[in-house]
Amino acid sequence: MKISVYAMSVQMFVPTLRQLAKILDKGAQHAAQKKFDPAVLADARLAPDMFPLTRQVQLACDFAKNSSARLMGVEPPRFEDNEKTFEELKARVARTLDYLGSTTASAFEGAEDRDIKIPLRDQTLEMKGLPFLQNWALPNFYFHVVAAYSILRHNGVEVGKRDFLAD
Amino acid sequence: MKISVYAMSVQMFVPTLRQLAKILDKGAQHAAQKKFDPAVLADARLAPDMFPLTRQVQLACDFAKNSSARLMGVEPPRFEDNEKTFEELKARVARTLDYLGSTTASAFEGAEDRDIKIPLRDQTLEMKGLPFLQNWALPNFYFHVVAAYSILRHNGVEVGKRDFLAD
Repeated sequence: MKISVYAMSVQMFVPTLRQLAKILDKGAQHAAQKKFDPAVLADARLAPDMFPLTRQVQLACDFAKNSSARLMGVEPPRFEDNEKTFEELKARVARTLDYLGSTTASAFEGAEDRDIKIPLRDQTLEMKGLPFLQNWALPNFYFHVVAAYSILRHNGVEVGKRDFLAD
Repeated sequence: MKISVYAMSVQMFVPTLRQLAKILDKGAQHAAQKKFDPAVLADARLAPDMFPLTRQVQLACDFAKNSSARLMGVEPPRFEDNEKTFEELKARVARTLDYLGSTTASAFEGAEDRDIKIPLRDQTLEMKGLPFLQNWALPNFYFHVVAAYSILRHNGVEVGKRDFLAD
């Protein structure tokens, strides 16, 4: 076994996004069982000035997709941010998984040294591929996946860490 | 720059644990400002059957410390789980950082292929070093750090993603 940027990006995003899809299923099931509007849960937050579940899922997908694209040195595909339902959120995860599945390990060769530009609202961050992976791609990805999980957990959905960890 | 198990473990745990210490500071300051007992915040949870802040911090430290030790093929040092105050939690993070700081990159050479045993309550998981890092060490570490963050965020502490991401 050899460690590689591909192993530490795509191979980590994919199983975690698959778990996220299952966690979203549990959220939808919870709403159905309790007979409340699932849109309420999709719009739930942990604090009034924090992103709701929908946005956390969109961002988790984007950090997986955009980070992988940047590490390969290609333009990330753009997804519109218009998901509102659990079904739509699951479709976004599925589209992200499709994109990740279309990548190949060889496209990530030499990615450690690639110059990466991250366009933000008010600035552009620039870093090499390895610190980008360490300090940006993975922390941001997990941040939003666990935030999504925490919102559901806080709202009574029966999820535990085993749902988050890949089988 | 070369990707390595050391780069993707110790070099990721260290900056994130430093941020966790700052986030804990903000929690303690919030309690002082609002004049409530900080022990209430240290014992806060997102759900009644979820671990409180103290335990999330202990677990984040343990996944960093134990995973690093296992990847090096050495016995992890044991820390007692007796922290109750923010001060004590910060001391645990500091002890963990001391341990991580005592490791060297060379001790992680060949860790991808090391046979890792993870003693759990009711079973022992066995896997090679690389999947251990991908599917166990990093996901578990981030899970508990973001859970700690989320508990504070939910309780009104003024933290944002920038506090979680390393500078």
